[in-house]
Amino acid sequence: MPTTVIIGGVAGGMSTATRLRRKDEQRRIIVIESSGYVSFANCGLPYHISGTIAERSSLLLQTPESLAARFNIDVRVNQRAIAIDRQRQEVTVRDDQGDTYLLNYDTLVLSPGAEPFLPDLPGIERSLTLRSVEDLDRIIDGIKDAQSVALIGGGFIGIEVAENLQKLGKKVTILEKTQQILSPLDPEMSAIVRRHIADNGVTVLTNASITAIGEKNIELSDGRTVLADAVITAIGVRPATELAETAGLDLGPLGGIAVDDQQRTSDPKIFAVGDVTEKPDAINGQPSLAPLAQSANRQGRLIADVIAGEDVARRPVLGTAIVGAFGLATGVVGWNEKRARSQGRDIRIIHLHPVQHAGYYPGASPIHLKLVVDANNDAILGAQAVGRDGVDKRIDVISTAMSAGISASRLADLELAYAPQFGSAKDPINMAGFIAENLVKGERNAQWYEVSDYLEQGWTLVDVRTPAEYEHGAIPGSMNLPLDDIRERYQELAGHKVLVHCQVGLRGHIAATLLQNLGFTDVVNLDGGYLTWSQGTCYQ
Amino acid sequence: MPTTVIIGGVAGGMSTATRLRRKDEQRRIIVIESSGYVSFANCGLPYHISGTIAERSSLLLQTPESLAARFNIDVRVNQRAIAIDRQRQEVTVRDDQGDTYLLNYDTLVLSPGAEPFLPDLPGIERSLTLRSVEDLDRIIDGIKDAQSVALIGGGFIGIEVAENLQKLGKKVTILEKTQQILSPLDPEMSAIVRRHIADNGVTVLTNASITAIGEKNIELSDGRTVLADAVITAIGVRPATELAETAGLDLGPLGGIAVDDQQRTSDPKIFAVGDVTEKPDAINGQPSLAPLAQSANRQGRLIADVIAGEDVARRPVLGTAIVGAFGLATGVVGWNEKRARSQGRDIRIIHLHPVQHAGYYPGASPIHLKLVVDANNDAILGAQAVGRDGVDKRIDVISTAMSAGISASRLADLELAYAPQFGSAKDPINMAGFIAENLVKGERNAQWYEVSDYLEQGWTLVDVRTPAEYEHGAIPGSMNLPLDDIRERYQELAGHKVLVHCQVGLRGHIAATLLQNLGFTDVVNLDGGYLTWSQGTCYQ
Repeated sequence: MPTTVIIGGVAGGMSTATRLRRKDEQRRIIVIESSGYVSFANCGLPYHISGTIAERSSLLLQTPESLAARFNIDVRVNQRAIAIDRQRQEVTVRDDQGDTYLLNYDTLVLSPGAEPFLPDLPGIERSLTLRSVEDLDRIIDGIKDAQSVALIGGGFIGIEVAENLQKLGKKVTILEKTQQILSPLDPEMSAIVRRHIADNGVTVLTNASITAIGEKNIELSDGRTVLADAVITAIGVRPATELAETAGLDLGPLGGIAVDDQQRTSDPKIFAVGDVTEKPDAINGQPSLAPLAQSANRQGRLIADVIAGEDVARRPVLGTAIVGAFGLATGVVGWNEKRARSQGRDIRIIHLHPVQHAGYYPGASPIHLKLVVDANNDAILGAQAVGRDGVDKRIDVISTAMSAGISASRLADLELAYAPQFGSAKDPINMAGFIAENLVKGERNAQWYEVSDYLEQGWTLVDVRTPAEYEHGAIPGSMNLPLDDIRERYQELAGHKVLVHCQVGLRGHIAATLLQNLGFTDVVNLDGGYLTWSQGTCYQ
Repeated sequence: MPTTVIIGGVAGGMSTATRLRRKDEQRRIIVIESSGYVSFANCGLPYHISGTIAERSSLLLQTPESLAARFNIDVRVNQRAIAIDRQRQEVTVRDDQGDTYLLNYDTLVLSPGAEPFLPDLPGIERSLTLRSVEDLDRIIDGIKDAQSVALIGGGFIGIEVAENLQKLGKKVTILEKTQQILSPLDPEMSAIVRRHIADNGVTVLTNASITAIGEKNIELSDGRTVLADAVITAIGVRPATELAETAGLDLGPLGGIAVDDQQRTSDPKIFAVGDVTEKPDAINGQPSLAPLAQSANRQGRLIADVIAGEDVARRPVLGTAIVGAFGLATGVVGWNEKRARSQGRDIRIIHLHPVQHAGYYPGASPIHLKLVVDANNDAILGAQAVGRDGVDKRIDVISTAMSAGISASRLADLELAYAPQFGSAKDPINMAGFIAENLVKGERNAQWYEVSDYLEQGWTLVDVRTPAEYEHGAIPGSMNLPLDDIRERYQELAGHKVLVHCQVGLRGHIAATLLQNLGFTDVVNLDGGYLTWSQGTCYQ
């Protein structure tokens, strides 16, 4: 009977195991898991800290017993694969008593996941991390009596943990080394989330360079000290490649295991799946890491099909992700502007701030949406969205559109479900498409960080909002000429190059086209209006 | 100065007007609207009945004055176009004083919308309809003192109105002439909504053949009488083609105005937009009506571009739609099974009942999802979804996939945003793709209405749920053999053709593949499991 040994019993590994059993009843399937748990809901771990997910047991989706009963899979927890002999097709396993034994395999699947990065800092041994159920138990124990908790790292998991600690009444400080939290976002989008988190009582320190972790605090290089009865680090993960490296398997340029389109490593008898592998990026085909559960599950399923002899191939990854915190959702897909610019892409940027459903229906709230578009072919390179409601839907629609190669302009034509509680006759997605279409047709926009350049070059900044809006807060150097007055007063701008803006971009667009129709040749609309400008500049 | 006259000032007409102004400042744009209001939110009207949308004014998105100030559009409300002289390019208009005058046009745009059908019944003059703001006012007045209200028609608008009347404490009865409410759904999906509406206190009568509307009640042909202090009819709409017909414009086979890919009627100087027109169906290209706001807006924008000289063409329509009632959302896109079968298509049907986000996160609730797939090429022909949360998202993703030509199996690969509050690592959409993939690879499923056929043909119906589930309710004629016992007990089925089922279809799939791997050749899984079967049969 052929034997498949799977190292790692979460997401990718367990997807392989169960799918493989459905494909093949006549095979030994053995799963080696170093922790005490398989198939646990790692994405749910932060929510048990606060009791939002009340029962720890609800995070444990399967047990070795249930997997044996249903799938005849031999699951061995608290055991660790410590060596692979590729010649003999043999894995050395250390069992829960510390004894070692050998396991032969016909195919081997590596699904060890990724391990948290830990910065090299004095006192770092005091810091907790969150990756396994055991980690979770340590955190719950470690914060029990803590009044203050410092979170090193302002990424997705850091923010989820911060929310859950805050719910427990802890004094939470997020320490982020770079200029902004949530690096998958561009800074003006990140600022929305930062403001929201701060408004909910979490202290967020950026450019926070830690010099030492003390017994009750953390010291920063600028002399500040942050109270920290407990410390949790979540600055990212790296592929857990130790076993693969020792076995001489090829790694890719980013330090993950290199695999082919069937998830085969450089040894054709050995597959790798999930966070430990490098995946082709959907935009440019280059290796990427993207440690996400969805693609781990998908790859696991694929490996089972390959082992069962089917002709299947992986798809590249877009890296769709979302995080919720304090009632605000933040979603991303594909590339952000930073990345597109660093790759030298010729791009168009679109910001908009529509409400998630009909504005006249109770509960309307804004979605801040950003699209990064290839200026050469109108392809969508990426999107970011932040809002209280409907963010996941828009990111999923854009992800689907990207996956299908729908251009940014064609978003205008998507037929999205509309009733007042659910959307708008012109959905935010359609609105983004309208703007993309206008840009394709030659309309020009400017970005929030370009306003000062325009002013220096002698352009006139015209705020077309109402006088009341203008008085409430305006961009320095702007003049107020309300949209509805332009037909009467446009001669005031005669001979000027005009950068127009409104609150969110729509009236600015109307004003820009009107001025062009009235004979102005140099007219640019400020993308996303005053709102994007203020989001972009508020933490500068 | 060229003149464009637009007849009808909602959705399509007003989209044309405002877009055209942005394209062309040097043009007279005149809008003739027969009601007292333009740009009102017709999809919001039902929600003002109950006060859910508290302010009537919030339904009025624009006024003639605001449109004049911002877009220099000449909007004339309470005026009616009564004749078109195509030779002279002239419209006869009756103004609000009853006087008539002539308007010359260079281009004419017809956007009169659709009018409610009224059945030919004694007493029908007592029935109210809901299409305009004036209708809304009449309904609010008409139900003020009513204790009971009968709603003729169990379609989307009927159900929205029913919910809002129920909120006011009225005794509401929905009278539906056919076997099921919500005709865009197939019966087993419609049954979920019907049950939910009934559970919320609305009486739903199907196969209700009305003989007369009395002063305080409605009489049915089967002798029943329904209390009805007020009567509202919402049995659908028909294109308001009277003016177009009088002018000799061509109609299409469904009675709407026939237009070309630029929305031109048979007279090249006259365009038509929105509910009054026929549109090409996205699945087979045949004319369809699909009276939806989104496509009206989109066509309006397109007409403006065409008048401005751009080379653009409409896209076919999928007919995405959604309705919410009593906390339950129901969405559709494309064709249902009834339609696909009536067209003689070779199809595969997929039912599933996943929860909308991680099951371990609080608030998980099922989405009942159905996919209609072309058996020849795996193309998605349509989808239906019913659930408390996340229905709009899944319908939008499927609509986008259909629009892009993504096959049903490829739904498995979509990268959808996952965090426990928003989705699952295997989203319902991915799950639908997995099932589609299995069917492509030869797995067989049966539909709820085929169970009796299988039993008659001697198949053994095996319920693989637990004994506790089985005792709680089972399909007549089934035997219980729990999934986890199959490896021990499968000999009991030796020689049988086996139709397996579980609660929702997943364990049934595992059981079916296991039995095949154990040597059974005739194994079929009941699609959607016991749940779809019970939904399909509960009102039969």
